[in-house]
Amino acid sequence: MTGNLTVIGLGPGNPDQTTPEARAAIEAASEFFGYGPYLDRLALAPDKKRHASDNREELARARAALEMAASGRSVAVVSGGDAGVFAMAAAICEAIEQGPATWREIDFSVVPGITAMLAVAARAGAPLGHDFCAISLSDNLKPWEVIEARLRAASGAGFVLAFYNPISRARPWQLGRAFEILRETLPEATPVIFGRAVGRTDERMAVATLGDARPDQADMATCVIVGSAETRVIVRKGRAPLVYSPRSTGRPAR
Amino acid sequence: MTGNLTVIGLGPGNPDQTTPEARAAIEAASEFFGYGPYLDRLALAPDKKRHASDNREELARARAALEMAASGRSVAVVSGGDAGVFAMAAAICEAIEQGPATWREIDFSVVPGITAMLAVAARAGAPLGHDFCAISLSDNLKPWEVIEARLRAASGAGFVLAFYNPISRARPWQLGRAFEILRETLPEATPVIFGRAVGRTDERMAVATLGDARPDQADMATCVIVGSAETRVIVRKGRAPLVYSPRSTGRPAR
Repeated sequence: MTGNLTVIGLGPGNPDQTTPEARAAIEAASEFFGYGPYLDRLALAPDKKRHASDNREELARARAALEMAASGRSVAVVSGGDAGVFAMAAAICEAIEQGPATWREIDFSVVPGITAMLAVAARAGAPLGHDFCAISLSDNLKPWEVIEARLRAASGAGFVLAFYNPISRARPWQLGRAFEILRETLPEATPVIFGRAVGRTDERMAVATLGDARPDQADMATCVIVGSAETRVIVRKGRAPLVYSPRSTGRPAR
Repeated sequence: MTGNLTVIGLGPGNPDQTTPEARAAIEAASEFFGYGPYLDRLALAPDKKRHASDNREELARARAALEMAASGRSVAVVSGGDAGVFAMAAAICEAIEQGPATWREIDFSVVPGITAMLAVAARAGAPLGHDFCAISLSDNLKPWEVIEARLRAASGAGFVLAFYNPISRARPWQLGRAFEILRETLPEATPVIFGRAVGRTDERMAVATLGDARPDQADMATCVIVGSAETRVIVRKGRAPLVYSPRSTGRPAR
């Protein structure tokens, strides 16, 4: 008997940014896996079971969820934002590939969500208006040298950069080092957006320049967007500035 | 008297992927600007006014919408997917910057949506599971040389690539050329996903390899995702293959 497993992206935190598709998937499942604070957002009915775990135990959580689905249950794994962007969908796929053959028979699906960089960009204007990259600054799962090479390649080619996992107690220096690397090639005036907990009551938005951006402006709940050399700021009286990356470019690539 | 202007991302096409926030913004507005097929998706009440325009007239549409908002109306500009990703939000910002000072006083906001690459990725598994880029292959607004340089930089550094605007009648060769460039450095077995009209009744998903991917597998409604050298395919009996990019990498960057 084989059940099903759905990985659900809840969006960045504002319940109005959770799609009806995600709501329906939550309604349909009976066993819920995920990081405690994400499960808290669901306000689950008493007949639904919570299996909360720490955010650092993704592969163990993926295996437990697959095992339960293989036993015939209807299982949901929830992520903040989009489940496929630095979140649980890849961990589940990894576990399926390494696991018993029966796990490939599970009815598996992924429900997309609004990922953090889209919500932050919307609040700021349109900083992702031209080609852009999403990079996790966490060196838990890849060597820091790979991250440095990606920062240089992407900024040198004119992409806007969105940073996920910019900083944490265990990774205090990576964001500052990333700013240093970008200062080698990008203008000091390049806009940097710090979008924290966007759409939640504790939301905090800040716009800095690459020249004066400080790593302590970010925390674990922050998505940082660094513009390209073409990204612009529109100053408005009595309103927050608008940051946008123009659709067109005439600039030759480096 | 100054009105308001909201740019609304409707998601990729499945109404269940349109957020409640977007629905509420549609409810609140009275004048609707956008590409005809997007406006058709709204099923507008008779007291709401449609201003449909061609998809290629973005800046003119942006100006018309801003002018109407400046005159005191409640205006919505709708985009498919996310309004900030190769869509109307940047065009509006551009028009605000170039326009009269009064346009900066307009109450302007952006409502994010599920962008195509997230919906396509969810259908395929987790191909955006590690660092990735979004690139528009349209050379209407930037020189083709810039696009080539970005393709080389991003694929060389190990990013997964999501292509927007991959092909059209006016731009028939760009996608084929992009595949050629990527074949110079990526393995032939690199997975390529063609996700067309995802979530709509005419959805079509296909998984190829870079070695055999053909540009005629895409059309204007397709988002193409090209994996990195690390992206993997899980074959499943009686089910579509799962494509995912593992969260961890040990591969040194080039």
